[in-house]
Amino acid sequence: MTDFSPQYSVNSGFMRKSVIRELLKLTQKPDIISFAGGLPSPDTFPADDLAKAAAEVFASCPAKALQYGTTEGDPDLVRELIAYEERHGTVASASELLVTSASQQALDLIPRIFIDPGDYAIAGRPTYIGAIQALQAYQGRVLGVPFSPEGDGFDFDELERIYASAIAAGARVKYIYVIPDFQNPTGICWSLEKRRAILEFALRERLFIVEDAPYREIRFKGAQLPSIYQLDQESGGGHVIGLKTFSKILAPGTRVGWIMAREDLIDKLVTAKQAMDLCTSPFTQAWLAAYLRNYDIENVVARTRALYASKRDFMLERLEADMPEADGLTWTKPEGGLFLWISLPPGADTDAMFYRAIERKVAYVVGSAFYFDRPELNSMRINFSYSSFNQIEEGICRLSEVVAAELRK
Amino acid sequence: MTDFSPQYSVNSGFMRKSVIRELLKLTQKPDIISFAGGLPSPDTFPADDLAKAAAEVFASCPAKALQYGTTEGDPDLVRELIAYEERHGTVASASELLVTSASQQALDLIPRIFIDPGDYAIAGRPTYIGAIQALQAYQGRVLGVPFSPEGDGFDFDELERIYASAIAAGARVKYIYVIPDFQNPTGICWSLEKRRAILEFALRERLFIVEDAPYREIRFKGAQLPSIYQLDQESGGGHVIGLKTFSKILAPGTRVGWIMAREDLIDKLVTAKQAMDLCTSPFTQAWLAAYLRNYDIENVVARTRALYASKRDFMLERLEADMPEADGLTWTKPEGGLFLWISLPPGADTDAMFYRAIERKVAYVVGSAFYFDRPELNSMRINFSYSSFNQIEEGICRLSEVVAAELRK
Repeated sequence: MTDFSPQYSVNSGFMRKSVIRELLKLTQKPDIISFAGGLPSPDTFPADDLAKAAAEVFASCPAKALQYGTTEGDPDLVRELIAYEERHGTVASASELLVTSASQQALDLIPRIFIDPGDYAIAGRPTYIGAIQALQAYQGRVLGVPFSPEGDGFDFDELERIYASAIAAGARVKYIYVIPDFQNPTGICWSLEKRRAILEFALRERLFIVEDAPYREIRFKGAQLPSIYQLDQESGGGHVIGLKTFSKILAPGTRVGWIMAREDLIDKLVTAKQAMDLCTSPFTQAWLAAYLRNYDIENVVARTRALYASKRDFMLERLEADMPEADGLTWTKPEGGLFLWISLPPGADTDAMFYRAIERKVAYVVGSAFYFDRPELNSMRINFSYSSFNQIEEGICRLSEVVAAELRK
Repeated sequence: MTDFSPQYSVNSGFMRKSVIRELLKLTQKPDIISFAGGLPSPDTFPADDLAKAAAEVFASCPAKALQYGTTEGDPDLVRELIAYEERHGTVASASELLVTSASQQALDLIPRIFIDPGDYAIAGRPTYIGAIQALQAYQGRVLGVPFSPEGDGFDFDELERIYASAIAAGARVKYIYVIPDFQNPTGICWSLEKRRAILEFALRERLFIVEDAPYREIRFKGAQLPSIYQLDQESGGGHVIGLKTFSKILAPGTRVGWIMAREDLIDKLVTAKQAMDLCTSPFTQAWLAAYLRNYDIENVVARTRALYASKRDFMLERLEADMPEADGLTWTKPEGGLFLWISLPPGADTDAMFYRAIERKVAYVVGSAFYFDRPELNSMRINFSYSSFNQIEEGICRLSEVVAAELRK
């Protein structure tokens, strides 16, 4: 059989399978309690209403829903998305919005347009692994910025230092990637001051910001803060690309998201998307348009918020109760989202500990997976949305034993 | 407003919007009879059965269908696809099959893995514009091979000559892209001899073949020929990547297709797809799995075949009746698919003629759109699947007048 590996592109050598998805395979045995995935709870899916909305599409416009559609997106869905955004304080016109095959496609579209081999995007240390993967597929690199000890956004002294030294070394930095609302993996929520500060930094350095906001609506406590997209709009706009998705507020199986950006960027993204998949499923788009028009997504979001808040509270309670007392063993207490981030004292190795956790029938995501380079080894991401309360109780008990054993070393 | 165009990647400069999709906007006025699109007839969509299959998904497995899925694809759908392929003479195991967000995603995945800037793929002159666009997004190039006058596949003397001179000039050629069954745009069907010959050529030159087969099942007359994928299997396999889609045999609005290839290539493609969209919609996959399991896609294909055959016959009849007699004015008489290809005498310019056709309220796709470089200007692609019989009658009458005027020049 011919060996085609000499034909592989240079790009393909930079691709790596998501560590999360590979580890997930280990965690799928039924007796393992997994805090590893980023799955929403299926209890939040409004399956009956979605079934009715799908039936309405077949009754009202099957020929349109089963046909090819435009790359820009179904005008009916775009109208509903504009109304949804308006209810949430963001003004966008149809020419400033592009329907995507969920946010991962947006994360792939953006480097395709902006990243040449060796170019950098600024992002958190740690940050969402899917964004790192997409960047790597274009031979892009991450200029990683640590978060402040207060957990309110980037450490700006570090940002200035890292950026200046990268520029001095000739780095081409293209954009800033942030998840200000309940960041994946840490759960950190950016303060208003830091939201303003990153926008000022972007304007000063003539960079744009990619604001990934899949968890924004899933806030348990505290007042909603303006998105960076909204802050930018207050002063004229045009410097932020906003990414949204139905994955956490309705159902990830729809695989539909949307990008908001100024018209010239949307136009460029449409051209790139044409060659990627022509259009996002017209059926799925018509289905979501019917759902948004005739059913109550805000009620789904409210129920999701309440469920995850109680799971998060219960997980924090169990962590307090079960985890050993130790200097440097801390965890975030996120005000929203799906994850919290446990830091062990320096020297702990959650990569090595993972296999002992699997033996003890509990799983997490190794913190190292969320670093583009020089991974830190003493942390892990824990999901609280998917497991049942019983699983959270038993799973945190098991995990605490594994952590205690690691700390005794 | 900051100008971000200095940030654009080199790649993005090579992207171009599909001429087809841009021209389509001109053709969407209701009084224009358009032979331009590549749309299936909505009369072929089994909307009632698809509605029932969707309802069955909501009744049986909503939590699975609305959740994230694996990149490889829903095992239930993969099983149905394997059974479908087996009925059509192709053996594939689950590890040799990847579900894609329709074939355009496959056309994007393959150059991502194989094309470095400046690399070549061999393809027809003309060939499918979406394949050219996807290649261009990676700065790939097309080594264009003309078809034989007999219309039975590549002109192999030309292939040998063009390939030898490209290799002598240091070109890196990565793969061969072909649409052997009712090629887009020409409607050409490759003979068995030429299918064997291109496989031999690929083996000799250690290239692989991308066989794009969206129209394969839509054959009106003549016996089905083995696919190049099947011919390769007879001698051990592993040298062909087969692309299939539901777009022409069921409904394009599903946006689901599949790739068949040997396991190491599928594995590489899965890694690339993870960073593109994580997974194709689990809902859509479960829906199609239910449809394939409980309803009769072969009946849909048979009805589609019969409808398109009669439309094709009628269009050929009207062309015979209405087109002027002229040396060099010819058209293909495809045995399947959705398109035929009209060639005007050398010197005719279908690009310029397009605007006069629009004035006369009839539209086609300019032939030049299907060339990577040095476009020929004397041809056009005509779709016969979408228009009604009345529209075909009136549209061919109008088009014939426009062609006659062009020839009088």
